[in-house]
Amino acid sequence: MIRIAIVGGTGYTGVELLRLLAQHPEAAVVAITSRKDAGTRVAQMFPSLRGRYDLAFCEPQQAALDRCDIVFFATPHGVAMSQARELVSAGTRIIDLAADFRLGDPAMFERWYKMPHACPELLEEAVYGIPEINRDAIRKARIVANPGCYPTTVQLGFLPLVEAGLVDPQRLIADCKSGVSGAGRKAELSLSYCETADNFAAYGVAGHRHWPEIVQGLNRASREPVRLTFTPHLTPIIRGILATLYAPLRDRDADLQALYEKRYAGEPFIDVMPPGSLPDTRSVRGSNTLRIAVHRPPDSDLALVIAVEDNLVKGAAGQAIQNMNLMFGLPETTGLQAPPLLP
Amino acid sequence: MIRIAIVGGTGYTGVELLRLLAQHPEAAVVAITSRKDAGTRVAQMFPSLRGRYDLAFCEPQQAALDRCDIVFFATPHGVAMSQARELVSAGTRIIDLAADFRLGDPAMFERWYKMPHACPELLEEAVYGIPEINRDAIRKARIVANPGCYPTTVQLGFLPLVEAGLVDPQRLIADCKSGVSGAGRKAELSLSYCETADNFAAYGVAGHRHWPEIVQGLNRASREPVRLTFTPHLTPIIRGILATLYAPLRDRDADLQALYEKRYAGEPFIDVMPPGSLPDTRSVRGSNTLRIAVHRPPDSDLALVIAVEDNLVKGAAGQAIQNMNLMFGLPETTGLQAPPLLP
Amino acid sequence: MIRIAIVGGTGYTGVELLRLLAQHPEAAVVAITSRKDAGTRVAQMFPSLRGRYDLAFCEPQQAALDRCDIVFFATPHGVAMSQARELVSAGTRIIDLAADFRLGDPAMFERWYKMPHACPELLEEAVYGIPEINRDAIRKARIVANPGCYPTTVQLGFLPLVEAGLVDPQRLIADCKSGVSGAGRKAELSLSYCETADNFAAYGVAGHRHWPEIVQGLNRASREPVRLTFTPHLTPIIRGILATLYAPLRDRDADLQALYEKRYAGEPFIDVMPPGSLPDTRSVRGSNTLRIAVHRPPDSDLALVIAVEDNLVKGAAGQAIQNMNLMFGLPETTGLQAPPLLP
Amino acid sequence: MIRIAIVGGTGYTGVELLRLLAQHPEAAVVAITSRKDAGTRVAQMFPSLRGRYDLAFCEPQQAALDRCDIVFFATPHGVAMSQARELVSAGTRIIDLAADFRLGDPAMFERWYKMPHACPELLEEAVYGIPEINRDAIRKARIVANPGCYPTTVQLGFLPLVEAGLVDPQRLIADCKSGVSGAGRKAELSLSYCETADNFAAYGVAGHRHWPEIVQGLNRASREPVRLTFTPHLTPIIRGILATLYAPLRDRDADLQALYEKRYAGEPFIDVMPPGSLPDTRSVRGSNTLRIAVHRPPDSDLALVIAVEDNLVKGAAGQAIQNMNLMFGLPETTGLQAPPLLP
Repeated sequence: MIRIAIVGGTGYTGVELLRLLAQHPEAAVVAITSRKDAGTRVAQMFPSLRGRYDLAFCEPQQAALDRCDIVFFATPHGVAMSQARELVSAGTRIIDLAADFRLGDPAMFERWYKMPHACPELLEEAVYGIPEINRDAIRKARIVANPGCYPTTVQLGFLPLVEAGLVDPQRLIADCKSGVSGAGRKAELSLSYCETADNFAAYGVAGHRHWPEIVQGLNRASREPVRLTFTPHLTPIIRGILATLYAPLRDRDADLQALYEKRYAGEPFIDVMPPGSLPDTRSVRGSNTLRIAVHRPPDSDLALVIAVEDNLVKGAAGQAIQNMNLMFGLPETTGLQAPPLLP
Repeated sequence: MIRIAIVGGTGYTGVELLRLLAQHPEAAVVAITSRKDAGTRVAQMFPSLRGRYDLAFCEPQQAALDRCDIVFFATPHGVAMSQARELVSAGTRIIDLAADFRLGDPAMFERWYKMPHACPELLEEAVYGIPEINRDAIRKARIVANPGCYPTTVQLGFLPLVEAGLVDPQRLIADCKSGVSGAGRKAELSLSYCETADNFAAYGVAGHRHWPEIVQGLNRASREPVRLTFTPHLTPIIRGILATLYAPLRDRDADLQALYEKRYAGEPFIDVMPPGSLPDTRSVRGSNTLRIAVHRPPDSDLALVIAVEDNLVKGAAGQAIQNMNLMFGLPETTGLQAPPLLP
Repeated sequence: MIRIAIVGGTGYTGVELLRLLAQHPEAAVVAITSRKDAGTRVAQMFPSLRGRYDLAFCEPQQAALDRCDIVFFATPHGVAMSQARELVSAGTRIIDLAADFRLGDPAMFERWYKMPHACPELLEEAVYGIPEINRDAIRKARIVANPGCYPTTVQLGFLPLVEAGLVDPQRLIADCKSGVSGAGRKAELSLSYCETADNFAAYGVAGHRHWPEIVQGLNRASREPVRLTFTPHLTPIIRGILATLYAPLRDRDADLQALYEKRYAGEPFIDVMPPGSLPDTRSVRGSNTLRIAVHRPPDSDLALVIAVEDNLVKGAAGQAIQNMNLMFGLPETTGLQAPPLLP
Repeated sequence: MIRIAIVGGTGYTGVELLRLLAQHPEAAVVAITSRKDAGTRVAQMFPSLRGRYDLAFCEPQQAALDRCDIVFFATPHGVAMSQARELVSAGTRIIDLAADFRLGDPAMFERWYKMPHACPELLEEAVYGIPEINRDAIRKARIVANPGCYPTTVQLGFLPLVEAGLVDPQRLIADCKSGVSGAGRKAELSLSYCETADNFAAYGVAGHRHWPEIVQGLNRASREPVRLTFTPHLTPIIRGILATLYAPLRDRDADLQALYEKRYAGEPFIDVMPPGSLPDTRSVRGSNTLRIAVHRPPDSDLALVIAVEDNLVKGAAGQAIQNMNLMFGLPETTGLQAPPLLP
């Protein structure tokens, strides 16, 4: 059994880790921390987990994190990097579901997250945790930077096109729509039911933190520098991201369907759908699958890619467990095989 | 492996059976029928099941139902009873998720379902499939009448009070609220998004088919005849039923919490919550658990019971699988252990 | 023109007053206050009002409230009573949309609102603002206590039965379902989209502040003391309350339909629907109408009443304007005639 | 008073016409037709209109359409063109809310709507009913082709850029999101609550009927031919369209804000919002206003325009009444002044 601690377990990624790990045959969650709710039983805060966990939230210092095999940080940005040095020295591996290790350049981190990086010397060894891109490195990593929800969808959506050099990487557009859980479990007016239900809006148009993360990832895959316009929107659903991606084709005759099928052949969590498909977010609700369809819109030289994921699973907790499975030599799909919940 | 056929698999109970059985280690779905969609692959109609099933829907007569160990009827009322005689003769067991075998009295069936009963001689041996009431009989049954969604919640909610004779059974009120999936997967204007979203309404006030079923069940548990007022409402959620139950107490000093905890001790799918709890439907979303809380409202001699279930799971497909597990000597929770999906 | 000030205008009742008063031919909103948002233009906070108001929120002391004809308090409980004495002395009339003047007994107020009453001497003259009950008194009132949202629906729903003595007033049950806007415009986790959408729950079962208000009102109408069980629920809709009311009939032969039609004959905002009707909340969305249907459930001696209102209109801002119209001698429907928004 | 008939009044555009016309001081709806529901009272089908209309639906031939001043066709495509010749000969004016007169080229109509055009000779005189583009022509028109919902938003969103030649018209992208009411009031499985709620999807990617209509309109405004990629999506809201529009700028220094403000100066129903604004659909819910914000995304040479409308008002019934007002010499805003409903 893998001894697991979750730091900051009261958010949606925390409870999603708990839900998924409850079904994982090799996982033993031995500690879950929350300063604010120390002493509260997990099953009291989340009645959906009654009968699944006896644990109570504890203070971080009481969690004996360094005696765990792995620590998931489901915390705000800035927490994981403050504890990373100590933990990896003690032989504990880390998966950070926040952004501390996502951007390779500490200056870029500081610019977007408004804090200096606490352990820039670890940035280089941290592995960006998309298994479909970095599988081998993840297996050996001590620190995995679990990607943001938008970046997972957008990178995997554009990847085959960009890797193949089939599109003009200077003119990429990602028009993305996210469910409200992407904003976290927070007491904020703008996230309240009456402000978000029966409503649709764009946000973060002037600059969203996931933008540099996506561009960094696409640049690594592309031979030419990437320019991306990224427009996130909030749609009144709980879980799910749908990304509508536009890229100008250089070769109008390319077989895009074959390209995608080949790139993702054998990937257990990437579903390249048949030609003409229109994936919807509910088709991945609660699951670690990312579904992709590739289109050629009429009277256009664009490739149009539609990709959907559950932002809390493939976009957060599920991908983190997929990474953990790799890090501990388990079959990659362990504990992640429940089908989506539909309807 | 249990060889399973599903008759009428294109509705929500059908796809929910498929979702749950995909995780069941002893289940092999060998056929699924649909007259209308024969030839269509299951995974084409329900992309959420891509990669889970290779099956296509087939014509009923091509399904070789009598060579299966068990047949689930996820059909409209009237289908199961037309095939029951033949199947049980062939040694195939039946779980009907429709109403054909729910009402013990064929006259009552005819009155509420507007058709004569096709095999009244089998009605007597059919077992009403609430394991928490009829566990032993279900184990041996050839035909299980899987209960309606409301009847499961309301009966299990009132049961301890009525069995114990603690309340006046002539003055029971069940004010129930159901998600829209309870009405099935149908092209009906009244079920369309624009007619049901951002809206709340009662329906079926003059007489709902689940009413005689509930009364029959409570009468079996009660020493005195039961009278029930049953008011169903439609609430804009996909899955879930919440029943608010009112019953006049005869003994104001009774320890209701202890009564419920004792009655349901050891039940794997009934969660009697701590005093003061207010269960919500999402706490059981996607799971076979029914959660119950018992209250004493201020300045009143009523018992107030709040019970929640997922109408497609404990109210339909999940309870059917629970019944199947009993019928085939498996641990009752087999394949039903995934936690609820929250948020 | 009536010179109007709104104190505390940033909540949902505040913006609803603004929406409705924008269409009122005799209303001039001259000031709107908010300590927190002083200086912000109304149309900046509420883009739906762009082009309708040039006003900015101001500090309360800058609002010259005593030079207005009427002040609406759309504030938390406790604010109106602290300013009432001064304002009425200056000849300014008051409509409090909070609870300060709803309960006639200051001890009761203190018990439920956890603060002493600041002007108990004014409680007696304050008029409880349901025009269908207190029309004449409202016309002359200096202080109107605008009722709570649940109390409006439940009192008007039970009223004809209780006034006529047709039911046992000791055994009333109000099973109520409210949209989320009833909880106000607040940054609270429990009101966030991901906690309330696709979910249904009861709350306040152990005692809700609207309970004593309803009981007080029904006691005034009844010759015998009233006992009420009141169960509020939260349903994922923005606006709307549906009350399902149960009352044991003393006279099984009474013509309930005629009773209701007669009691509310000529009322511009009460719609007694035809026999068999099932009003839904959207049929009153955005309007000041309260729709009622009366039923006799099968095999029962109960009267079953279903009443719907928009909690922000007839349950708050609309009724406040209806009261204002009476206080200033205008036709009662002035500015309140726009039809509901459906779908 | 303008004598008005509505043909095909049981859909969402029909009931929206009724809602809006109930507040219009110069409108008298004298007939409303429906073959299927002839004899049913309007207020029975739409309880939200109880007390507003005494009318019942009637058979089309009984409606005496030719004695009306104007007939609104809120019908499926193909109905208006079959009656247009006769009505205009009788001096009755027509506003078709379907597509019969939207495309100027009968071959194009036949290609997209799969039926020959019934009166191609009237196509030329029919005026495309966007007042902000064709105000003068609408005043004199006998036949107004009321635009589609998407075409209104997308054309008005792109218009200033395209008219000014500021963008490359060969590379326009309209990523659009619509509420479910845009699909009409229909008994279709794909529109049912359980299929659309808590879900987000694209549709019509291979070719949507509104695409040629938009391209036609933009071509009329542009000096160069237009190519447009149009991706419609369905979002779980009842009313509302949000269009996210991308256009490559030719002049990076152009003052887009000034351009839009100037183009729409004095327009009563176009709200060019301040720089940095992010309009949401609810800010126009129930109103005839279209709000627009213009952005320059970072590291990009695109103009990004976000436009929102209520698809049933500015996208259908409201714009139809705006057109009617022009046709009958009334102030353009008559009957259309109620503020949006928020929350």
